[in-house]
Amino acid sequence: MDKLRDMIRSFAEARDWDQFHSPKNLAIALSVECSELLEHFTWLTQDESREIANETVSEEIGDIMIYLIGLCDKLGIDPLKAASMKLATNEIKYPVSLSKGNAQKYTELREGKIQNQQTS
Amino acid sequence: MDKLRDMIRSFAEARDWDQFHSPKNLAIALSVECSELLEHFTWLTQDESREIANETVSEEIGDIMIYLIGLCDKLGIDPLKAASMKLATNEIKYPVSLSKGNAQKYTELREGKIQNQQTS
Amino acid sequence: MDKLRDMIRSFAEARDWDQFHSPKNLAIALSVECSELLEHFTWLTQDESREIANETVSEEIGDIMIYLIGLCDKLGIDPLKAASMKLATNEIKYPVSLSKGNAQKYTELREGKIQNQQTS
Amino acid sequence: MDKLRDMIRSFAEARDWDQFHSPKNLAIALSVECSELLEHFTWLTQDESREIANETVSEEIGDIMIYLIGLCDKLGIDPLKAASMKLATNEIKYPVSLSKGNAQKYTELREGKIQNQQTS
Repeated sequence: MDKLRDMIRSFAEARDWDQFHSPKNLAIALSVECSELLEHFTWLTQDESREIANETVSEEIGDIMIYLIGLCDKLGIDPLKAASMKLATNEIKYPVSLSKGNAQKYTELREGKIQNQQTS
Repeated sequence: MDKLRDMIRSFAEARDWDQFHSPKNLAIALSVECSELLEHFTWLTQDESREIANETVSEEIGDIMIYLIGLCDKLGIDPLKAASMKLATNEIKYPVSLSKGNAQKYTELREGKIQNQQTS
Repeated sequence: MDKLRDMIRSFAEARDWDQFHSPKNLAIALSVECSELLEHFTWLTQDESREIANETVSEEIGDIMIYLIGLCDKLGIDPLKAASMKLATNEIKYPVSLSKGNAQKYTELREGKIQNQQTS
Repeated sequence: MDKLRDMIRSFAEARDWDQFHSPKNLAIALSVECSELLEHFTWLTQDESREIANETVSEEIGDIMIYLIGLCDKLGIDPLKAASMKLATNEIKYPVSLSKGNAQKYTELREGKIQNQQTS
């Protein structure tokens, strides 16, 4: 990850692209790349999406990673650490007892549970 | 990265969420999270975006990483390798001589160069 | 608008595309088209964005309208009425006295006002 | 539509928001709103998405329309005309004979047809 970050940094420096790479612009670019990835899935069924060819999407995954690492570098954020911390937060937001087999957002989760208890 | 992938896998398994986590749905979730990150930057100037507080955005970065790693896991794609390969492709698409100080897309880059040569 | 909705409906029917046009898939397509529009602005300054050529973006605007009208048709929503109603809601959420010259989100707006009053 | 455009214009003027409403920023806001709409569909099946409650999504549709009309106003684009013209383009790109019951993108459509002819 660190090696990749250094390569991305050198790539931008060699092209004098830091002037364009504000966090705002990198966040736009990241969002655009995620939509390019999503475009491949637009009309597929869930099952078809499980059999999509790797080659089709791995270039888009590469683009997303490049902008994500570049943005984190500008902001002084460690993406792996950010993910670990969010996962710990999610353990609290989505307790297994409430969210097992249930895709509801945490803001609806507790309400839903209360309703279930009332009706049972 | 591998440890994180295992934690994400266990998190979903414990909640029986694999039924929801088709590549299509994960690609939607990833795109939605990138937009939530982008939302923080909507009305900021470039300079203001350079001074955004880490705490504001690191949760969103965490969410993006979690869905990205989860999606790559389903598709059998190594995100670090995908980024390295795309960076190598970009070295060819965006040669320093053509793209220095120039944010044009590669599809416009060569045309632009030809035009510049004709007018010089 | 009604004429356009009928044309969009006929277009999909002639191609037997209703099987693909679930609200979920149309919402994905709409989001993807908005990102294609946004892509044109990624590296532009605010001032450059004011001078973008109409031809560059009017095709994307057309795509967005087509999916938006198609989606509203499936959901039984009148897009003009939805916009009027949201505008009325926004009049209440963003009172001129609080939001003049201030791009803060309404959730931060009242807090900010209270802080301003305390410091004045 | 014209009346709505005038209301949106007055709303922004009363709040002195034109300074924030560059085409670039409006394109970001539009994309963010489309993702908020999409978020409601993330974990739904196609069938569930057909039964989503209007109230859930009509506020998001309203936001999308407001930013879309505002952006078109800044760029001097008539959204209804842009949609009509794109629909005429699509009639050519997606001839009924090739695209009936087939969700392929036009760039893949003709290749697919040629392959089909070769294998038949």
